[in-house]
Amino acid sequence: MAAPAASVDSATERTESVEPRRRKKRSFPIVDTDVHHGYAHKSELYPYLSQTYRERLEDFDFGSSLSYNNNGGQRGYRVDAIRTGETPPGGGGVCAVDFELLREQLLDGSDIDFAILTGGQTYGASAMMDLAYSNAICRAFNDYSMEHWVARDDRLRYTLAINAQDPLGAVEEIDRLGSHPAVVGIMLACGAPRPYGNKFYHPIYEACERHGLAAAMHFGTEGSGINPPPTSAGYPTNYIEARMARPNFYAVHVASYIFEGVFELFPTLKVAFIEGGFSWVAPLMWRMDLDWKGLRHQTPWVKRLPSEYLRDHMRFSSQPMEEPADPKALDLFIEWMDGGHTLMFATDYPHWDWDDPAMSFTGLPEPLRRRVFAENAAETFGLTLPSGDANA
Amino acid sequence: MAAPAASVDSATERTESVEPRRRKKRSFPIVDTDVHHGYAHKSELYPYLSQTYRERLEDFDFGSSLSYNNNGGQRGYRVDAIRTGETPPGGGGVCAVDFELLREQLLDGSDIDFAILTGGQTYGASAMMDLAYSNAICRAFNDYSMEHWVARDDRLRYTLAINAQDPLGAVEEIDRLGSHPAVVGIMLACGAPRPYGNKFYHPIYEACERHGLAAAMHFGTEGSGINPPPTSAGYPTNYIEARMARPNFYAVHVASYIFEGVFELFPTLKVAFIEGGFSWVAPLMWRMDLDWKGLRHQTPWVKRLPSEYLRDHMRFSSQPMEEPADPKALDLFIEWMDGGHTLMFATDYPHWDWDDPAMSFTGLPEPLRRRVFAENAAETFGLTLPSGDANA
Repeated sequence: MAAPAASVDSATERTESVEPRRRKKRSFPIVDTDVHHGYAHKSELYPYLSQTYRERLEDFDFGSSLSYNNNGGQRGYRVDAIRTGETPPGGGGVCAVDFELLREQLLDGSDIDFAILTGGQTYGASAMMDLAYSNAICRAFNDYSMEHWVARDDRLRYTLAINAQDPLGAVEEIDRLGSHPAVVGIMLACGAPRPYGNKFYHPIYEACERHGLAAAMHFGTEGSGINPPPTSAGYPTNYIEARMARPNFYAVHVASYIFEGVFELFPTLKVAFIEGGFSWVAPLMWRMDLDWKGLRHQTPWVKRLPSEYLRDHMRFSSQPMEEPADPKALDLFIEWMDGGHTLMFATDYPHWDWDDPAMSFTGLPEPLRRRVFAENAAETFGLTLPSGDANA
Repeated sequence: MAAPAASVDSATERTESVEPRRRKKRSFPIVDTDVHHGYAHKSELYPYLSQTYRERLEDFDFGSSLSYNNNGGQRGYRVDAIRTGETPPGGGGVCAVDFELLREQLLDGSDIDFAILTGGQTYGASAMMDLAYSNAICRAFNDYSMEHWVARDDRLRYTLAINAQDPLGAVEEIDRLGSHPAVVGIMLACGAPRPYGNKFYHPIYEACERHGLAAAMHFGTEGSGINPPPTSAGYPTNYIEARMARPNFYAVHVASYIFEGVFELFPTLKVAFIEGGFSWVAPLMWRMDLDWKGLRHQTPWVKRLPSEYLRDHMRFSSQPMEEPADPKALDLFIEWMDGGHTLMFATDYPHWDWDDPAMSFTGLPEPLRRRVFAENAAETFGLTLPSGDANA
């Protein structure tokens, strides 16, 4: 449900300095589980890198995280999310690069209680051959994010950049920053040489449990660097085709976590699937349950119905909002996936196809609306919701 | 909806020679759009090969078509679909190897009017480096199938084995056999170096139109030979995970056909997606329509809503039958995908998870039942349904 973005003309008329808007009265809190932030230029990472890697970044960058350009809107952005005369950064990710604008448009403008910063520009670090350089990039982006974003507004929470393809290096980074109160999760990029339930990654989940962090996952590196092509039929031609393949970018990991028995090994782990939509979740639950009944002798470590693990351990962000031709379908999909426990609202700011909370889930009854807009996310990321709102 | 297969004991008691069962009275015809047939031993192909390739097949085979063993049931089969003491063939595909048994159990036993033979053992031919050898294998399998299967029962129809990765070689084979009255389509394996809407394959569709053939597509070669891994996260560990990835094996091609504009170029082409289930179809239609509205400036050759192309040109076989936790969901999925025009029944004989027509879609109202069990397939594959049944 992409909200009508402001026209290019109105963006041109934007004043550079704005007052934070006054908070509107609303009966429920909002946690926005997908807000992309980043640097306007890679040089902002230089202070956090050794000389060797600073020079490498300056001279050779570290590869784009995207195989398919995010080419809707204005260079992938809401047209009003770029200031007049500014050129958004190229390379991986379409990320808000201006804290003041994000505060004005999103935090104040949409009256968000908590925003989970999900980055984007460093997703490709997990697709690099050079693990040490990749780890350095993640570390620099984490330090940069904590200092230039998280420290500036107490509504911001952060998912750590890690290089999942170096599990022990990732654990070091999780142990370095994972106990900071604003750090609520780690970020995994969907593209990977092997699915995330695989034994290879288990040290990462052990570290997540140790620090009470969720594992968040976001598309964006499929077919890049050391990762395989985005589909079983290679590289589609058009951006819109890559968008159609997204459900499987996530579904392969859902199945992997469950059938590798990850939640038996890590019983407090939560996994959040971000920017994948959700119409694919219930049918996958049904297929997993049906086939597990016929094939469970092959995976005896999977002790319960797959859909039960999903309900207990997996959460799905709402954006891009489904728009079924049959209006009742949206309610049914939410019911079938037990959205009261599994669905979390997200705007996906500043992307061109963002979802405006004022125009999203407007027909949801209480208490389901509260679960979707705030409580599921609060439980997943360990957030304390404003008490006034929570009991309103 | 896998029907309860006979026990191993009852299979042991099977008599070798059986009389064809008498046809049961039923108010509607059945076209079974997915019946896997094949050879019991590769030597059955030798008479159709040159000495060079016969020796190569004997000594080195041509690679398995499957990355993930079809390991439910008895070696992937219905337990009663293998005769006592017989060992089903290894290698690619789980295929009926005994015409008499297929006639008894399926054609007579389930009172099938037409069965579309889909093979399976040669799907991997499109994943080979050696195009000439691959073409020879396809040609041999086609000659073998016509002589040993198609010629033995007038209810059998055939989808040609071709090597889609050599489009000009495939066209030669289509021109050689495509006008035989029992040949109703070509068979494409889902795994491929690039999606099937790509310009690379267009000569094949031109040949299909010339001979009035449907393009059928079946999973089975993902991650094999020259094909990329089955998912954007590489190779899942377990067979059941590969089953969960199947919808995308098909969805990538659906999107490719539509957004490459294939149906504008080949306006009479029909594409049949076999053994992929169908709960994923309607959500994909909605996503395609939504994103096309936002991105259609990028693909101006796509002149209509993606869902309209799908309704006019794409057909989906029913097996493996969905079993949603919510019983009304099945009817809704059929309604949402316009199943009256897009859904075709299939048993998937002789696979372990086959669907018995007597236990499938039992609640469908007329005339929808007739559309799904027969008429959609008859229109897709150019079959003339029995006139008595058609008007019953």
